[in-house]
Amino acid sequence: MNNDLILLGHGSGGRLSHQLLDELIIPALSGIAPSGQNDAALLPPPAGQLAYTTDSFVVDPIFFPGGTIGSLAVHGTVNDLAMMGAQPLYLSVGLIIEEGFSRADLKTVLDDMRQAADKAQVRIVTGDTKVVPRGKADKIFITTAGIGSVGHDIAIHGANARPGDKIIINGTVGDHGIAVMAGREGLNVGTDIRSDSAALNSLVAAIIAEAGDLLHVLRDPTRGGIATTIKEIAQQSDVGITLHEERIPVNQAVRGVCSILGLDPLFVANEGKLLAFVAPEAAERVVAAMKRHPLGTQAAIIGEVVDGEPGRVRMETSVGGTRAVEMLAGEQLPRIC
Amino acid sequence: MNNDLILLGHGSGGRLSHQLLDELIIPALSGIAPSGQNDAALLPPPAGQLAYTTDSFVVDPIFFPGGTIGSLAVHGTVNDLAMMGAQPLYLSVGLIIEEGFSRADLKTVLDDMRQAADKAQVRIVTGDTKVVPRGKADKIFITTAGIGSVGHDIAIHGANARPGDKIIINGTVGDHGIAVMAGREGLNVGTDIRSDSAALNSLVAAIIAEAGDLLHVLRDPTRGGIATTIKEIAQQSDVGITLHEERIPVNQAVRGVCSILGLDPLFVANEGKLLAFVAPEAAERVVAAMKRHPLGTQAAIIGEVVDGEPGRVRMETSVGGTRAVEMLAGEQLPRIC
Repeated sequence: MNNDLILLGHGSGGRLSHQLLDELIIPALSGIAPSGQNDAALLPPPAGQLAYTTDSFVVDPIFFPGGTIGSLAVHGTVNDLAMMGAQPLYLSVGLIIEEGFSRADLKTVLDDMRQAADKAQVRIVTGDTKVVPRGKADKIFITTAGIGSVGHDIAIHGANARPGDKIIINGTVGDHGIAVMAGREGLNVGTDIRSDSAALNSLVAAIIAEAGDLLHVLRDPTRGGIATTIKEIAQQSDVGITLHEERIPVNQAVRGVCSILGLDPLFVANEGKLLAFVAPEAAERVVAAMKRHPLGTQAAIIGEVVDGEPGRVRMETSVGGTRAVEMLAGEQLPRIC
Repeated sequence: MNNDLILLGHGSGGRLSHQLLDELIIPALSGIAPSGQNDAALLPPPAGQLAYTTDSFVVDPIFFPGGTIGSLAVHGTVNDLAMMGAQPLYLSVGLIIEEGFSRADLKTVLDDMRQAADKAQVRIVTGDTKVVPRGKADKIFITTAGIGSVGHDIAIHGANARPGDKIIINGTVGDHGIAVMAGREGLNVGTDIRSDSAALNSLVAAIIAEAGDLLHVLRDPTRGGIATTIKEIAQQSDVGITLHEERIPVNQAVRGVCSILGLDPLFVANEGKLLAFVAPEAAERVVAAMKRHPLGTQAAIIGEVVDGEPGRVRMETSVGGTRAVEMLAGEQLPRIC
């Protein structure tokens, strides 16, 4: 018996499953997994409207500069809730593990989930583990779902962008995607490039406190990058959008790697960024509030919603021209999250 | 471009992802996927306590006699909620798809999810799709999470079995596991063996209506079969349990396949069965109520909770002996759910 590896029997539901749960999974998530051995967790319902979301994570490699698949799986779902203006409360975790995955790596991933959950003040309350034969999955896939509470009546959604709105981002774009790619290809990028993976719920709380109902849209530009996300919002809200290339913050090292590889950082995934569409009279105040938050020190206004041309996004380039911005076509960097 | 297959770009978050969502996923789940393109669904909170659960599904093959991975992924999570006495309300769906999976098969799986959800009166409200390169997953994995509402104050949980309780099952055991194995091995079992995969929430409602707080434990004996589940409950409740082998319903064809292959149907997975632990004075009434329900026509009392020997399960065999029942050791039939 090899105690260091995950075996098919660990997914059987039988004795080995119980051992794995009792020896590794529950202790790693200890204090935040009260559902015990029942089929579901019983919890107080959220006070306001219920926000509900899910994301599957298949990132390759599972360990990358600035994060792991564990922290990413918590941040991603916490952020999807935060983007609706919800306070994240509860997470569920579905693990699909490849036979032969190491218990040590599993422990690292779970410890990382726990830390990320603690930091975001959200509880992992229920979970499930499946094991598939060697070669039928790639190490580990994690699906988190999350429940949040919306305790205000501000309408924050993708169809709510209005002409005049300023578009604010909380920092540099493209860090996550390039960090994962560097990890995958074994590029030595030193400490210059790290994933921005982070839970944005406390930053969102600061934005809502400052903007109130002058906040119209929040979205995290993950897969497809800020270009795809902004195009989505232009289409959903049936508005035109103008972006200003020179105002979009990009880490110099990320810009360098992108330029060598022919990638556009505007299409590269982020995991700790948000775009806020805010009425113009509140924009400067919101930027100032974001800059006081550790995850918003490089906050900047990068564009605005304009009259006419619904669904169109134009970039004013740094050399003085303009170009159309479309969604990511094809797949630039697979398995980025 | 091959329009019939899922490509990596369908998981990019970009244009192809939007096409797949708009052309296939949203229409297939139409009317039950109102979250649109926002990051989370906003929903009325449950009236009572909130029940929350998740399960990942990796069944092989994805189509088997009596079901598909799609219906299974709905039934499994609905049943985990029902086993807490909750009324299932909302489901989330995380899809992990192998590049090259056929769009036609994806449509079949999603249609099946929709049908199962409609029948169980639960809504699929949010989802996510990832695509991994060929050979990095096996066709499709589905993780569902589910939210339910507990509108009563009956304590139904695994630590609540009490001496004297009768143990009731709603029908034959082992059908799901053997049907999946038959599908996998290409065994021709005709129509004799079909998965029992089904949503049990309406049966649970009938049991609660009849038993009230004389219902102490509900659990669905999935992976590990009824043997493992009953052993779990004996340990959680710190009680002894006696089972009567000849009273446990087993489909003759399932018994035949098990006997040829050296499998014990008590350890084979079910996906449409429940075990109810009920105070003795209510047991016959509950069996009668279950028999009036389409999913309980073969309901039977198969054992009882006894004083002494906490955590021990004994089987009175049909030849007059007794033997100890333990949890499934190792993995009898991998990827059964």
